[in-house]
Amino acid sequence: MARRVTGPEIERLIQLLARLPGLGPRSARRAALQLVKKRDQLLAPLTDAMRTVHDRVRVCSACGNVDTADPCTVCTDPTRDGSVIVVVEDVADLWALERAGAVNARYHVLGGVLSPLSGIGPDDLDITGLVERASDPAVKEIILAVNATVDGQTTAHYVTDRLEGLGVKVTRLAHGVPVGGELDYLDEGTLTAAIRSRTPF
Amino acid sequence: MARRVTGPEIERLIQLLARLPGLGPRSARRAALQLVKKRDQLLAPLTDAMRTVHDRVRVCSACGNVDTADPCTVCTDPTRDGSVIVVVEDVADLWALERAGAVNARYHVLGGVLSPLSGIGPDDLDITGLVERASDPAVKEIILAVNATVDGQTTAHYVTDRLEGLGVKVTRLAHGVPVGGELDYLDEGTLTAAIRSRTPF
Repeated sequence: MARRVTGPEIERLIQLLARLPGLGPRSARRAALQLVKKRDQLLAPLTDAMRTVHDRVRVCSACGNVDTADPCTVCTDPTRDGSVIVVVEDVADLWALERAGAVNARYHVLGGVLSPLSGIGPDDLDITGLVERASDPAVKEIILAVNATVDGQTTAHYVTDRLEGLGVKVTRLAHGVPVGGELDYLDEGTLTAAIRSRTPF
Repeated sequence: MARRVTGPEIERLIQLLARLPGLGPRSARRAALQLVKKRDQLLAPLTDAMRTVHDRVRVCSACGNVDTADPCTVCTDPTRDGSVIVVVEDVADLWALERAGAVNARYHVLGGVLSPLSGIGPDDLDITGLVERASDPAVKEIILAVNATVDGQTTAHYVTDRLEGLGVKVTRLAHGVPVGGELDYLDEGTLTAAIRSRTPF
């Protein structure tokens, strides 16, 4: 049967919401209903926020961060150490490192990882831009802050190869026990890495 | 530290997205980044769809369904049996019953269930509207299609009390084994109900 019980406008909204990461068809439907129910408290302000982001936010042409300025706030910040570039897979990783205040440097967003199975090759990532930036004599160190997954590590190896001969130091994040982590719950690879890279107490 | 790495526009978008059901702060951030990355394929059409819904979609004043028309398509559909009203908690339940083609009747959306713990009382639900509609002599049966939860059943009892004396038949959904369900995985209450309401084969 499945007759029309609501307008095509809502169907379209549900379909588009379902394309957001984290929302499936079912949760997109719930989200759409919530939006209709809270027209003034949620739907209207969210529409405005999205329009503003659409009109004003850009991807930084230098590092791949998203910001209202291009080059972005991070790239133009004179208090940052311009000799270090932290390479991350995604903007979310950049934000995570900044929330932690882990490093006072510039960033470079690859936009993903090499994944032959998903058909993602070197040309799909911003590696050329990284090589270009690393060729600047002012840049002394590239920190590869990619995820410790198989694809992430493959990407790290590939990027290291591409950076060879540029006279820049390439480092990667340390492996070890997460702060607050319990040994009993950690995998063998992490424990072995933590023992190998043990430091004097 | 936590210095500014992006504009307040994105922060606001993330905060609003996090208020959608199914999205937490972390997935809202991922959704916002996805929107920025897919400006033309996703952000722009989603903004348009939301604006259209905001401008055109309303909650039906009769039954609580959401539609571009008020009264809604379901309420004005002359091919539906006007003597039966199916009472549901939420619009999503109405849509689910319609997708199943379970019944050719009108609906009434309560807008939730009674829940003393969450401070939701009879005045927070559209029970008065239901009593009014049920008082119409043309209405012969009210099917209570609320969830089989404690709050849902409490609400069903309350609604039944309120409908008493109107001369309308009040029924509820059958309990039993879900189609395709395996007995071994079902709870005792369901199994007992299925045995009690057994039907001739």
